[in-house]
Amino acid sequence: MNIKEFIKTALEEDVGTGDITTLTTIPADREAHGKFLAKESGVLCGTDIAKQVFETVDPSVVFTAFFKDGDKINKGDIIAEVHGRAQSVLTAERTALNIMQRLSGIAKRTHEACEAIKGTKAVIADTRKTTPCMRVLEKYAVRCGGGSNHRFNLADGILIKDNHIAAAGSITAAVESARRNAPHTLKIEVEVEDMDMLREALEAKADIIMLDNMSNEEMKKACEYVNGRALLEASGNMGEKDLLEVAKTGVDIISIGALTHTVKAMDISLKFKLK
Amino acid sequence: MNIKEFIKTALEEDVGTGDITTLTTIPADREAHGKFLAKESGVLCGTDIAKQVFETVDPSVVFTAFFKDGDKINKGDIIAEVHGRAQSVLTAERTALNIMQRLSGIAKRTHEACEAIKGTKAVIADTRKTTPCMRVLEKYAVRCGGGSNHRFNLADGILIKDNHIAAAGSITAAVESARRNAPHTLKIEVEVEDMDMLREALEAKADIIMLDNMSNEEMKKACEYVNGRALLEASGNMGEKDLLEVAKTGVDIISIGALTHTVKAMDISLKFKLK
Amino acid sequence: MNIKEFIKTALEEDVGTGDITTLTTIPADREAHGKFLAKESGVLCGTDIAKQVFETVDPSVVFTAFFKDGDKINKGDIIAEVHGRAQSVLTAERTALNIMQRLSGIAKRTHEACEAIKGTKAVIADTRKTTPCMRVLEKYAVRCGGGSNHRFNLADGILIKDNHIAAAGSITAAVESARRNAPHTLKIEVEVEDMDMLREALEAKADIIMLDNMSNEEMKKACEYVNGRALLEASGNMGEKDLLEVAKTGVDIISIGALTHTVKAMDISLKFKLK
Amino acid sequence: MNIKEFIKTALEEDVGTGDITTLTTIPADREAHGKFLAKESGVLCGTDIAKQVFETVDPSVVFTAFFKDGDKINKGDIIAEVHGRAQSVLTAERTALNIMQRLSGIAKRTHEACEAIKGTKAVIADTRKTTPCMRVLEKYAVRCGGGSNHRFNLADGILIKDNHIAAAGSITAAVESARRNAPHTLKIEVEVEDMDMLREALEAKADIIMLDNMSNEEMKKACEYVNGRALLEASGNMGEKDLLEVAKTGVDIISIGALTHTVKAMDISLKFKLK
Amino acid sequence: MNIKEFIKTALEEDVGTGDITTLTTIPADREAHGKFLAKESGVLCGTDIAKQVFETVDPSVVFTAFFKDGDKINKGDIIAEVHGRAQSVLTAERTALNIMQRLSGIAKRTHEACEAIKGTKAVIADTRKTTPCMRVLEKYAVRCGGGSNHRFNLADGILIKDNHIAAAGSITAAVESARRNAPHTLKIEVEVEDMDMLREALEAKADIIMLDNMSNEEMKKACEYVNGRALLEASGNMGEKDLLEVAKTGVDIISIGALTHTVKAMDISLKFKLK
Amino acid sequence: MNIKEFIKTALEEDVGTGDITTLTTIPADREAHGKFLAKESGVLCGTDIAKQVFETVDPSVVFTAFFKDGDKINKGDIIAEVHGRAQSVLTAERTALNIMQRLSGIAKRTHEACEAIKGTKAVIADTRKTTPCMRVLEKYAVRCGGGSNHRFNLADGILIKDNHIAAAGSITAAVESARRNAPHTLKIEVEVEDMDMLREALEAKADIIMLDNMSNEEMKKACEYVNGRALLEASGNMGEKDLLEVAKTGVDIISIGALTHTVKAMDISLKFKLK
Repeated sequence: MNIKEFIKTALEEDVGTGDITTLTTIPADREAHGKFLAKESGVLCGTDIAKQVFETVDPSVVFTAFFKDGDKINKGDIIAEVHGRAQSVLTAERTALNIMQRLSGIAKRTHEACEAIKGTKAVIADTRKTTPCMRVLEKYAVRCGGGSNHRFNLADGILIKDNHIAAAGSITAAVESARRNAPHTLKIEVEVEDMDMLREALEAKADIIMLDNMSNEEMKKACEYVNGRALLEASGNMGEKDLLEVAKTGVDIISIGALTHTVKAMDISLKFKLK
Repeated sequence: MNIKEFIKTALEEDVGTGDITTLTTIPADREAHGKFLAKESGVLCGTDIAKQVFETVDPSVVFTAFFKDGDKINKGDIIAEVHGRAQSVLTAERTALNIMQRLSGIAKRTHEACEAIKGTKAVIADTRKTTPCMRVLEKYAVRCGGGSNHRFNLADGILIKDNHIAAAGSITAAVESARRNAPHTLKIEVEVEDMDMLREALEAKADIIMLDNMSNEEMKKACEYVNGRALLEASGNMGEKDLLEVAKTGVDIISIGALTHTVKAMDISLKFKLK
Repeated sequence: MNIKEFIKTALEEDVGTGDITTLTTIPADREAHGKFLAKESGVLCGTDIAKQVFETVDPSVVFTAFFKDGDKINKGDIIAEVHGRAQSVLTAERTALNIMQRLSGIAKRTHEACEAIKGTKAVIADTRKTTPCMRVLEKYAVRCGGGSNHRFNLADGILIKDNHIAAAGSITAAVESARRNAPHTLKIEVEVEDMDMLREALEAKADIIMLDNMSNEEMKKACEYVNGRALLEASGNMGEKDLLEVAKTGVDIISIGALTHTVKAMDISLKFKLK
Repeated sequence: MNIKEFIKTALEEDVGTGDITTLTTIPADREAHGKFLAKESGVLCGTDIAKQVFETVDPSVVFTAFFKDGDKINKGDIIAEVHGRAQSVLTAERTALNIMQRLSGIAKRTHEACEAIKGTKAVIADTRKTTPCMRVLEKYAVRCGGGSNHRFNLADGILIKDNHIAAAGSITAAVESARRNAPHTLKIEVEVEDMDMLREALEAKADIIMLDNMSNEEMKKACEYVNGRALLEASGNMGEKDLLEVAKTGVDIISIGALTHTVKAMDISLKFKLK
Repeated sequence: MNIKEFIKTALEEDVGTGDITTLTTIPADREAHGKFLAKESGVLCGTDIAKQVFETVDPSVVFTAFFKDGDKINKGDIIAEVHGRAQSVLTAERTALNIMQRLSGIAKRTHEACEAIKGTKAVIADTRKTTPCMRVLEKYAVRCGGGSNHRFNLADGILIKDNHIAAAGSITAAVESARRNAPHTLKIEVEVEDMDMLREALEAKADIIMLDNMSNEEMKKACEYVNGRALLEASGNMGEKDLLEVAKTGVDIISIGALTHTVKAMDISLKFKLK
Repeated sequence: MNIKEFIKTALEEDVGTGDITTLTTIPADREAHGKFLAKESGVLCGTDIAKQVFETVDPSVVFTAFFKDGDKINKGDIIAEVHGRAQSVLTAERTALNIMQRLSGIAKRTHEACEAIKGTKAVIADTRKTTPCMRVLEKYAVRCGGGSNHRFNLADGILIKDNHIAAAGSITAAVESARRNAPHTLKIEVEVEDMDMLREALEAKADIIMLDNMSNEEMKKACEYVNGRALLEASGNMGEKDLLEVAKTGVDIISIGALTHTVKAMDISLKFKLK
């Protein structure tokens, strides 16, 4: 499902067989003007999608953004405005807001995480714990918030976990089997839980090693041991950790599922005036 | 998009051109057994969908739920188990969890809201502030948590707000226009902000009146005035209010956007054993 | 399936892998001009759809309507004209006519029914006995003819019939179960066959009561008994009844399945001139 | 859109977000038994589709037909029966009936036309004046009624009409251009209005000649002149003609748009019993 | 799948979740200019499709063709040029080339076959041995190369082969059954292997007779025998035969599966310059 | 488009509104038995897909393969057999063969390339020059033939070419920009044309370096210089090169567009017997 189909599906879900209230109370030729108002501060994401939502309902609606995705916004800012047929604007309103509020919520939280580790070399990354049908958008929101993207799907990166290791027999066997059979264009990441596994993964020439639920002390030791020979990724309930302490262990990446699985929609409202 | 298409879309998004890690490290004939473990207490929702996710990836996978949607579960409970080809189980895992965790999060929060107003006549209802493409599922989660559903879309209920009133000229005119032109099978709800509007809506024979952002005192007065002649719905940032105090005003319905727009995924994990 | 998809599907069905006659006999740059001629009097419906059909085949075709949907037209009227590439116009012709003729046939028949009961308070309504894939369009045609719409689908209205009553145990039990479990935004209609059922439905506070296959005398009695406490709908082979007599019983709504299940296409033809 | 997609689309249109009446009044485990009753005599069509409708809603529903498509049925006949979960049977009912009633209406009317010309060599054929999205089904209904099919779409037959002739310069030029450029596997039909055109079409070696709006006398003359050198098709408001008189002129085919554009749904009802 | 959907599917397949190289190395506002260069001589096909590929990625890209489909081109010719956002042009490049190279390869091979039989009355035709999802395009390429099209699918022509004959009992029975039950608008072709079958097919009034794997001598005899009473088609590994010798036997059509099942992509490259 | 949709699309394309020959000549209850016969030696690919094609047309058809994908087969081998309703088997035949013949053609050619470089460390890889809509299948065929897969799409690998370099300013700048902005899970490949570019790419820490259109001597020099610090890929009309000579230069990968863009369908036929 590409963005266009996502918007179409979202609108069909919200509009059903027609916005009966609007169609029966507002004349077809009445015009309206609306302003998107930030009711809290944060990082903006979703203006392009919101614009497409309105234009999908009615190509003659004009949507103008005053900020762009990734911009910091303050409570009270007018984010964008929209002009056009009142029926169209009202029918599109909820779908546009639902998307923009969620994406801005993700961008805001990501930005906070990035700020928390400022000055360290670590980057904040997302996971595959995204909302079904919205992954590309949510990963875009993570980038708008200053974060990095992990794999987009199971095909564009190799991540060998405990079950893969068990099935292959050992980390070494799993890495070799993946290297032999998967496209040579993909990196190989191995999830490890202790220093023994880490050592084996490194010897097997893993490109990235995920440190799963390790203590900060263990992670520090891991970083010292690896010393740049592979990328190191801190993982495991990172949404509830002191990110600066994690970053200070020397890891390259901190991946946080909560960036996308536990989202607080940013408060944005649309104020209309009929003409 | 029906449930089947939603699952197919979610899987395509997560799997891409193939789960390359699993395909290159786990033999096609290897079997696995997994247990879904509740890592926190809550209200379950999504086992049927999870079952369908596994069966969509591979019809031979057997998924058995030990609880049913709407059941209260405790930390440590084994919610369900899954048997089948290890490749299939691993490929479906993330999509199944992403859906079940989100829906259970909604059911849990709804349940907490219902508990908060226990003993009053009010019911907790959702809104249209749902995740795009997941509305039917999220409204199902609200019911699993003990809540009621508001409109499913813009076609199955009439809700006259400030802009409709402005365009029609008055509450009376808007209600009459809707009554004359919309199917006679739909109820008419009017959003009001003060007692004057309330009185006009009641005289126009609105079936439901939404009290928008009113104080508890105002709502109490409204309930006394209306005295059963229409249903009364409390609305406006209800996610942050003391729900018992709101319910005690005598309203029939308390609708809460945050039930679905600000969700904390419930912590559920899948523990595998290869056979 | 929205209107755009309906048109695309209809065209694919009619055009197949290409309009081979037109492509092999008419030069690609030849222009044509066509006039839509009413070959009988009636009520017009479908000009917007017809316009979209031509534009879907070829965005450069110009379609101009001289009447609008809902207008009364007389035999001999030129309804619309179309200009553009001859190949495009000829390829779109049949699909456009098939839709417009059917919708105008429905509008005409609805109009005749409305005329028949003029002066009474009753309204003419449609049912769910519509052509698969065309419900929204056919219900629009009913409105163009002056009629009202009943439910659009099984989700936007509650209609309790004999089987629902039997399963729930009684009318009272069925109405209560629906009221408790369905969205509070929906009205509840109950189908009754005699005065006992009517009384029970009224006591259960049904919003609408459908009088199924009752004689005019029974319906008159029902209207007197209910006296405005619920809407009353006459139903059952209404397409073959004397509608004025039915209306005079005092019912609020007369619903007629034949409006959409037994349609005589209105005779409209397209006369071309090549340029 | 194939049959499966047509059924899915029809059901989505009728069910919307869920059959709320049935879901809130009938327990999920309640079983029902239904009989399809012919309320008038006719020719049956659509039992296979009806079966698929029920199975699409719920694969565990058992549908058994006592007649097969094309069978003559009498008022009072039990056409088929259906067993299964009451919720499923009720939800599928209207869609199944809408399709079966329409198709049987077409089969019945076709059968009547075929009976009218019994004993002559002519066959009754349909046209492209079918309901959008239902062409394959409606042409199947025509065959069930004993009729023949004309082209299924613009790609599987060449039919040269006045505009094609005008653009090509002459009948001869049009036929030659089509013969040179279209697949050699297609027959060429030419629509003519008088004997001069007929003669030219015959000389150009048209495989089929359509006699458009000719009087019976003219058609008789045409048949004598052509004398088997091409198939002759009578066309033009044949739905309102004395078909036997037309057939007696000697034409091979009588094509009737009204078979599918002006349909009276056959009266079939579904009687339930809950278990 | 129509052309638009084919292009959309092809692009989604090639672009996945985004052209990550281009997005991370080329600024969004950078412009590029590209020239399509013929690296070998041949017959062009696919410029319109290529244009649509670029416009689907980005409607602001301008594609200008200097040759049109069906034109002969020489090594070194600049076929077309494309201007626009560098990101868009690079993202669309491979899909456009993959299509244009394959179609031009087909056109070129067809042209060579046509040249080989120049001066005879025979035409070169394709078969149903085309690439799945590309039949309409590949048959268009055959026409661009000067060839004729055989059936587009199993519905637009009748071709009776050995199994149909065996099931029906005889050629005569098969032809009669098809004539009685299929639309009268379709021609009937019969595949024969020897003179006895040929005679029976001719007597049964087959419109076209396919001579399957016959020697040139046998085909010559067949042509003499039939003497214009049916079209004769030479078939069976024609891709490896001396086509002129086949044509000289007097057959009307030579159908060659290899035109589309064994294709050498024409060598075309796209040379860019960034602005 | 997943495999299921691909098969459905391919069948719809080939069957159109119905296999009219089969439907009108073969009784619905007639059974058939078919054998897939290899008419040349090669490497098999596509039996699973072929099986799915038959089952999509008719789930009761039984398809049994005697070889599995990747097996070497000899001329005269019976690859598989199929039993079931004659109508179903005949209708599915061409689509199944079109797919299996093309995939086996790719597997065979890949196998020949792999044999050619046997004993060297190099692997044969495919490219993105695949048939639109068939990439996943064609890349599977390459694996069946013993080859490796390059990128599946533009999202699962970074490949920096001349235009990306030009836009970024230098190889170094392009690699750094990609490393900073793309997911850390992707490898970075750089296309180079000479030793200077190679050196810069290696210093920028490219994971893979593509040697584009270099002579064997240059490639040898490149391999010596790089000495294992990056993977080296030989590219550029490799379909026409002496692959053993290329492999002996020491490159890790030889990627060949012609594996999929210039395919000779393997000759496989289906021999039926009616029962």
